[in-house]
Amino acid sequence: MEPYAAHVSLRWSDMDAYAHINNVQFLRLLEDARVIAFRDWFDRADGGGRSLLDEGVLVSRHEIEYRRPLGFRHEPVEIRMWVSRIGGAGFDVAYIVTDPDGLDGPGRNSGGDTGPHRGPVYAVAETELALYDFSESKPRRMRPAERESLAVRLGGDAPFRRRRR
Amino acid sequence: MEPYAAHVSLRWSDMDAYAHINNVQFLRLLEDARVIAFRDWFDRADGGGRSLLDEGVLVSRHEIEYRRPLGFRHEPVEIRMWVSRIGGAGFDVAYIVTDPDGLDGPGRNSGGDTGPHRGPVYAVAETELALYDFSESKPRRMRPAERESLAVRLGGDAPFRRRRR
Amino acid sequence: MEPYAAHVSLRWSDMDAYAHINNVQFLRLLEDARVIAFRDWFDRADGGGRSLLDEGVLVSRHEIEYRRPLGFRHEPVEIRMWVSRIGGAGFDVAYIVTDPDGLDGPGRNSGGDTGPHRGPVYAVAETELALYDFSESKPRRMRPAERESLAVRLGGDAPFRRRRR
Amino acid sequence: MEPYAAHVSLRWSDMDAYAHINNVQFLRLLEDARVIAFRDWFDRADGGGRSLLDEGVLVSRHEIEYRRPLGFRHEPVEIRMWVSRIGGAGFDVAYIVTDPDGLDGPGRNSGGDTGPHRGPVYAVAETELALYDFSESKPRRMRPAERESLAVRLGGDAPFRRRRR
Repeated sequence: MEPYAAHVSLRWSDMDAYAHINNVQFLRLLEDARVIAFRDWFDRADGGGRSLLDEGVLVSRHEIEYRRPLGFRHEPVEIRMWVSRIGGAGFDVAYIVTDPDGLDGPGRNSGGDTGPHRGPVYAVAETELALYDFSESKPRRMRPAERESLAVRLGGDAPFRRRRR
Repeated sequence: MEPYAAHVSLRWSDMDAYAHINNVQFLRLLEDARVIAFRDWFDRADGGGRSLLDEGVLVSRHEIEYRRPLGFRHEPVEIRMWVSRIGGAGFDVAYIVTDPDGLDGPGRNSGGDTGPHRGPVYAVAETELALYDFSESKPRRMRPAERESLAVRLGGDAPFRRRRR
Repeated sequence: MEPYAAHVSLRWSDMDAYAHINNVQFLRLLEDARVIAFRDWFDRADGGGRSLLDEGVLVSRHEIEYRRPLGFRHEPVEIRMWVSRIGGAGFDVAYIVTDPDGLDGPGRNSGGDTGPHRGPVYAVAETELALYDFSESKPRRMRPAERESLAVRLGGDAPFRRRRR
Repeated sequence: MEPYAAHVSLRWSDMDAYAHINNVQFLRLLEDARVIAFRDWFDRADGGGRSLLDEGVLVSRHEIEYRRPLGFRHEPVEIRMWVSRIGGAGFDVAYIVTDPDGLDGPGRNSGGDTGPHRGPVYAVAETELALYDFSESKPRRMRPAERESLAVRLGGDAPFRRRRR
C-alpha cells in the first residue's frame, strides 16, 4: 500500500527562537495532516458529508522521533501517513514528515525508510486515536463502515529507529 | 527521589474547538516546564548564569499518553518531572501532568502512579534531549558538571500504561 | 483610578525566529489578561460564579502599538488595564504592557505615560468588545450590574502616540 | 490598482473554544500573508533572493476590525492586501480578509467595500512596518528599489468602518 500524502503549509511562526520549526509544531502539522486525510478517507467510504473529526476522535497517545532540523520554507511539507493498527474502539496512524517529490530533484538521500520516495525524513511519528461520541460524552465502538475505510489504509509499523523498552 | 514540581499556567487559548486543553498544547506545557526546571537544575550546579536551554539542547523524541481531559482553569497545572535516563550526549526527562497539592482537597484518586501525591493524572510523558553546541552547530558530549546536576534528579521510567512493541 | 494589574507569564514559545516575543503573541497575552481581569471585575460585582468570558463577549476590534522589543524572561509581564469606553452593547479595554513594579529596581524611564508606575512600556493597546449571547447566537445589551462593574474601572483613552486619520 | 491576493490555509487549531477562528489567529494569518506577499513584491524588484522579511522589518502597529465570524474550512482564505502608506523608514499594509473568488459562487454580498470582488468580509486590518537592520540592530532608511517596489502596490486607506478618535 502506498502511503497517503497530505501536504501541509508551514507558517513563519512555526519557527522558534532557534529559527527552526519547533518540535511541538510538528505535532501541529500532524494534526492538520489528519484533518486533511480523514476527510478524504472517511467521506469516500461513507458517502456522507461528515468527517470523523467532526464526529469525534480523541488523541490518546503520541510518539514522535525527530530526525533532522526543518527550516521555514514556502513549500509545504509532505506528510506520508497510513493506519498502523485497527482496534475495536480506536486506531493508530503512522507518519513520515518529508518533502514532496521533486522539491529538490533526484538524488536526495532518505536513509532508506520511505521506500520509493526519496525525500529527507524530518520526523517519524505515530498517534493513537480513540473514537468518541461527543453527544454522549463517552468512548464508542468502531462501526463497520469505518473499519472498512481504515482497512484499505493499513500498513506496517511506524519506522522508528528504536523503541527503548 | 521526590519529583521536581514545575507549575505552569494554562492559557485560555490552550483550549481547542472541543473546549479542552488541546493535546498538542500539552507538549507546549512540557516545554515550559523544562524551561522552569532547567534553570533551577543547572544554575544551582554550575553557579553560572546560563541555563542549559540557552546553551543548547534539542528535543529528539517525545512520547505522551493522555489519561483524562483537562479543561481551562485559572490555577496552574503541576508538572512533576525527573530525569529518567542519562547518556553520553543526552538525557531523558519523564513527566506527570497533575494538579498542585491541595487544589481540590483530599480524597482525590490518582490511580496510584504518582506515589504520595494524589492528584488526577492528565498525562504521562517522556522527552529525549540531545545536547547541542549551537556555536559549532553540532552535537556535543555531556560535561561532568551537567552529569552531576542530572544525577541528583534521576528517577525511574515514565509510568506509561503500555509500550506496545 | 489606578489601573488594574494582571500578571501574565511568558512562554518560551512566544519568541519568534528573531528571538523576541512575537508581535502577534502580545495579543495572546492581552487575551489572558482579560481572562484574569474579567473574573475579578465581574465576579465581585455579580456575586455569581460565571465570568463575562463564559457568558460571552466577542472581540470586534484591536489596536496595538509596539514600543520596544520584549525578550523572554521568567518573570511575568504586568498588563495594566482599564475600561476606556462603555457602550450599550459593548465596551473598550485599554492596556499598557510593562514590567511589574520592582522588577528592575527604581530609576527606570517609562516615557511618562504610565503615571506613577515607572516601568518600560512594551506596548499600548485597546480592544473593543461586543456582548454576545451564545445561547441565542446574537448580540445582547449590557445589563445594569455589568455597567456598574465596568464604571468603577473607567479611565481615559489608551495613550497611543498617534492616531493617524 | 487591483489588490494583491494571498491565499492562506487555516489550521484546525486556529479555532478557539467557541469553535470560531480566534481573533488573535487572524493576525497570524496576516503574518503569513505578508510572508507570501513580500517574497513576491520584493524579489521581483530586486532580482535578488532575499525577502524583506529576511532582511528585517518590524511590526510597529496593528489595527484590525472584525466583521463576521469565520469557521474552520479546508479552503484557504483570501487576504487582499496593498500598501496604504510609504514613509522614509517604513510603510503600512492594508488588508481585507475574504474568500477566494468562486468559493461560494456568484451573488454573495460583500457590503460593497471590496470593489469588484464580492466575497464576505471577515476582517479589515492595517499594519505599520518599520524597516530594521538586524545586523546593526537599528532602524534603517528605505532604499530606492524598495520604494519602487512598494509604489506599484500603493492603494487607498484600509476601509475601516470607523476611527473613533
